[in-house]
Amino acid sequence: MASRTPSAPSPASAPARGDRPEPAVRPRRRLSVDERREQLIAVALELFSHRPPEEVSIDDIAAAAGASRPLVYHYFPGKQAIYEESLRRAGRELSARFEEPAEGPLSARLYRVMGRYLDFVQSHGPGFAALLRGGSVTASTNTSAVIDEVRKAAHDQILGHLALPSPSPGLRLTVRAWIANAEITSLEWLADRSVPLEELQLHLVQEFVAALTLTAAREPALAAELAGFFADERPDGPTGRLVRDLAGLLAVPGLADALTGLAAEPGPNPGPNPGPGPDPGPADDTRSEAG
Amino acid sequence: MASRTPSAPSPASAPARGDRPEPAVRPRRRLSVDERREQLIAVALELFSHRPPEEVSIDDIAAAAGASRPLVYHYFPGKQAIYEESLRRAGRELSARFEEPAEGPLSARLYRVMGRYLDFVQSHGPGFAALLRGGSVTASTNTSAVIDEVRKAAHDQILGHLALPSPSPGLRLTVRAWIANAEITSLEWLADRSVPLEELQLHLVQEFVAALTLTAAREPALAAELAGFFADERPDGPTGRLVRDLAGLLAVPGLADALTGLAAEPGPNPGPNPGPGPDPGPADDTRSEAG
Repeated sequence: MASRTPSAPSPASAPARGDRPEPAVRPRRRLSVDERREQLIAVALELFSHRPPEEVSIDDIAAAAGASRPLVYHYFPGKQAIYEESLRRAGRELSARFEEPAEGPLSARLYRVMGRYLDFVQSHGPGFAALLRGGSVTASTNTSAVIDEVRKAAHDQILGHLALPSPSPGLRLTVRAWIANAEITSLEWLADRSVPLEELQLHLVQEFVAALTLTAAREPALAAELAGFFADERPDGPTGRLVRDLAGLLAVPGLADALTGLAAEPGPNPGPNPGPGPDPGPADDTRSEAG
Repeated sequence: MASRTPSAPSPASAPARGDRPEPAVRPRRRLSVDERREQLIAVALELFSHRPPEEVSIDDIAAAAGASRPLVYHYFPGKQAIYEESLRRAGRELSARFEEPAEGPLSARLYRVMGRYLDFVQSHGPGFAALLRGGSVTASTNTSAVIDEVRKAAHDQILGHLALPSPSPGLRLTVRAWIANAEITSLEWLADRSVPLEELQLHLVQEFVAALTLTAAREPALAAELAGFFADERPDGPTGRLVRDLAGLLAVPGLADALTGLAAEPGPNPGPNPGPGPDPGPADDTRSEAG
């Protein structure tokens, strides 16, 4: 972060000043090369967080940094380079927010992480949206790499908290799909900001718990671990609320009966209650022939 | 599709032929302007389906079409234009596969659609992957628009089958997140092709049913509709198998007990069974203070 200590302006701190009027945005002092570079990145990140990249110019960055256009070019070959550098910083900052002590119920840990993640989304909104929506002129293999690294950090953190000896491909896929869900949910929220962030935070955690449960229903090894995760959960946590919300569905007229019918095993040895089957159409497990 | 009827080569059908050796890929005949354009798009789509766009040249397209490089340029200003045009065709083709009669259980309909979708993924693999992974030199606002249109077609088809009077924002978000899940799952499968496509097909449908159920647990109006959906489902369909897989989890040692503990209502008037709470740490619903 750039120091805010004021000092007398010095020509040496702004070489090759252009002919534009002097911006009076923030006090300047003689910065070291590293400090100046870091300051420019911080200023650029702030600008790129609040506007799509195509609406931020080198002049904007120079003005916001209290520097000249040539000075910015002295540190960065062009807008793309400074955009990518500020993006890398944002990626590191976001990844750091995923770190959480391995203590307490899993859903409570994830809930705290999602609070920090959503604060980031809120404070870097338009830039976050422009980046993830892609198709921007500033999209490149470098920007894709930053996105992929953040996704990988999220993925690795979650698997670390699950602490399984060998996470299955199915579980890894579940985690990746949930991360995509979190991204899409964030983008939707940025577009209309129609619900409190706390609601998103709770729902995303509950969706992770549900996705984990669904995966466990297919994978016996994970099912045994799931029992341990659930035993650590608390009634007032996201998982407790989820369990009660789902249990509440059983009170909806007709739903419990429908589930009972579906729970009956079909096949060569049908149980005593084969369930409703009003539609004698094609079996559900025929794959389409369309090529 | 280009006709395969052979005819004698005619100089008029290949104006401004270059000096490269004559490719003998397919028989040529005099094509109308529209036919030739369609043929070039079809040939390009085939090439772009099997290789990333940066590995397909105008020369490759000309050779595969039995045409000259200048002929291709006569119809398209450059590779980007023919790439985008073939992508638009692929998008229309994929969107058409989402169409399904509104008959029978919802999960069976979605299962058939997913069969056709996964066939498309399989036959257009590398191009599909390159497109969705983004960061390609050919990515543009036009390619993003095609992707968005396909996603919108999928979203609208699903909402059409749900046939609700006014789908909530929460449900729309659920549908969009599930579409992202389908994309990610497809990309993972293309990278390793480690499981049978039928397994993906079943799992994706079940994940949709689970996501719909979770949304209904939060939205009473949807819960009432959910009972109707489930009443139409069949034990041998994706939903029936899902219900039995989830019910099977209750047999996992400790899991049913943990769920019973979580189902107890916490709060100012705790029930007779407040549930396990070995961790007296911070309450689960504190949002992070990190800014």
